[in-house]
Amino acid sequence: MDCTDFNITIVGLGLIGGSFAMALRKLNPKNIWAIDIDKETLRVAQEMNIIDKGYLNPEIPLSNSDIVILAVYPQKTINFVKSNMSSFKSGAVITDTAGIKSNLIHEIMPVLRKDLDFIGGHPMAGKEESGLKAASKDMFKNANYIITPINGNKEENINLVGTIAKGMGCKRVVYLTPKDHDDIISYTSQLPHIIAVSLIDCNSLIKGTSRFIGGSFRDTTRVATINGELWPELLLYNKENIISKIEDFEKNIKEIKTAIINNDDVFLEKRFEDATRKRKEIVKDV
Amino acid sequence: MDCTDFNITIVGLGLIGGSFAMALRKLNPKNIWAIDIDKETLRVAQEMNIIDKGYLNPEIPLSNSDIVILAVYPQKTINFVKSNMSSFKSGAVITDTAGIKSNLIHEIMPVLRKDLDFIGGHPMAGKEESGLKAASKDMFKNANYIITPINGNKEENINLVGTIAKGMGCKRVVYLTPKDHDDIISYTSQLPHIIAVSLIDCNSLIKGTSRFIGGSFRDTTRVATINGELWPELLLYNKENIISKIEDFEKNIKEIKTAIINNDDVFLEKRFEDATRKRKEIVKDV
Repeated sequence: MDCTDFNITIVGLGLIGGSFAMALRKLNPKNIWAIDIDKETLRVAQEMNIIDKGYLNPEIPLSNSDIVILAVYPQKTINFVKSNMSSFKSGAVITDTAGIKSNLIHEIMPVLRKDLDFIGGHPMAGKEESGLKAASKDMFKNANYIITPINGNKEENINLVGTIAKGMGCKRVVYLTPKDHDDIISYTSQLPHIIAVSLIDCNSLIKGTSRFIGGSFRDTTRVATINGELWPELLLYNKENIISKIEDFEKNIKEIKTAIINNDDVFLEKRFEDATRKRKEIVKDV
Repeated sequence: MDCTDFNITIVGLGLIGGSFAMALRKLNPKNIWAIDIDKETLRVAQEMNIIDKGYLNPEIPLSNSDIVILAVYPQKTINFVKSNMSSFKSGAVITDTAGIKSNLIHEIMPVLRKDLDFIGGHPMAGKEESGLKAASKDMFKNANYIITPINGNKEENINLVGTIAKGMGCKRVVYLTPKDHDDIISYTSQLPHIIAVSLIDCNSLIKGTSRFIGGSFRDTTRVATINGELWPELLLYNKENIISKIEDFEKNIKEIKTAIINNDDVFLEKRFEDATRKRKEIVKDV
């Protein structure tokens, strides 16, 4: 698919939005515009030629954009689409980048104009820093990009989002229902973050702990540096799934604890061997 | 301190023992000998000049060694010292490499000959593979090495073990009581391993999960590839500490779960900000 006739607008020029702008240049679209609440960010992005033009007011870019990519937090994604519904260009493809899908799509679809197409998307990329300064044209290189089509989405528009993802360097484009997306992501992303936070919070009274940490602690706590503004939203929008995953995990921890209490080395050995095998299987092609 | 007059024997020529043998060459000791139950391993090590000579029978090397380094699992460490008590050379320094210290030292000290000195040691190094083939002369490079002296250890012998650690490339030699060692290690090493195993065991029914995992899952589960023979021993020898750490962690997980159930985004945001700050503090100089 050719993007050279398209005007693309990115909403929110932070880590993800900024990286989109940079990576989209390769696809050579007619214009890359951005909407942000911070004038200075837009000025810098324009000066660096990351975008062709920046706007504080969404009306002009939206009414001329064929593709709109929302790169703001879930609640803001919903609010932005609702508040600016009358400004989108007829036939525009709107896609988002939020880490939860069901509730977001559930809020947007009932109010979406019939001449617009909203395709849910979730690039599996990120890092611990935030803001345009942390953005990179290589952010999506080799990443997985999840698209969550629903009834009513036009096939050509679903494909367009996939083409953009591939064009930005993503390794795989994967299609899931919003429901399956939220279930899987609660396990593969949300639960590890909660675990990292819970581990780093333990035992804070040990002084000089840093002298005694090895790779296991460093790796298990890496994502304890977590965006405190974004993550409560992600968890609360995916409440049922994450609660269920936390409870599966609590059950596993409790089984190991019980085995230790009972000196059950046979159970522990089997559990550790199973875990080793599963880890190798699950991670082998990542 | 000069090691050129010393005969050093390594007991167990696996990942750790093999790496010791390789790294010790730099210190230029008179002889590096090894005791192992596997004839072929000894043959290979001798052929590769990793050791000067290998022995299946401990008597000859022990009776001529100034330094003995035990690189076998905790139970085997205890058994070996007890079974071979009459063979050690008078004045020998015996040190070990087990990941738990209190119970091991508690078992060894009452039966140790008065003319021997047992210095507990724990090199904070390792990898997911095992055996001599995975050993490396750089295994201890930049690692932390914990020594756990007790009343009765001679200062010169404590220093000798420290010198060896530094000579092998360790970044820091840290001194702790056996009790503090086991408390800290249950948090910084044992708990992360239990967490990784418990996470990988969740939700095994999701098919094709590997397409949806990002860095957080990959890092949090890295140490789920865990030695099923060694780890039950490590946990059961450190039972009280690890149970208490698991319970601290369970409490933290439960608080986050409760906050999600109650839509308490204020609690979550504060918890995530605290975790981010703590992670940065704890890991900054590692």
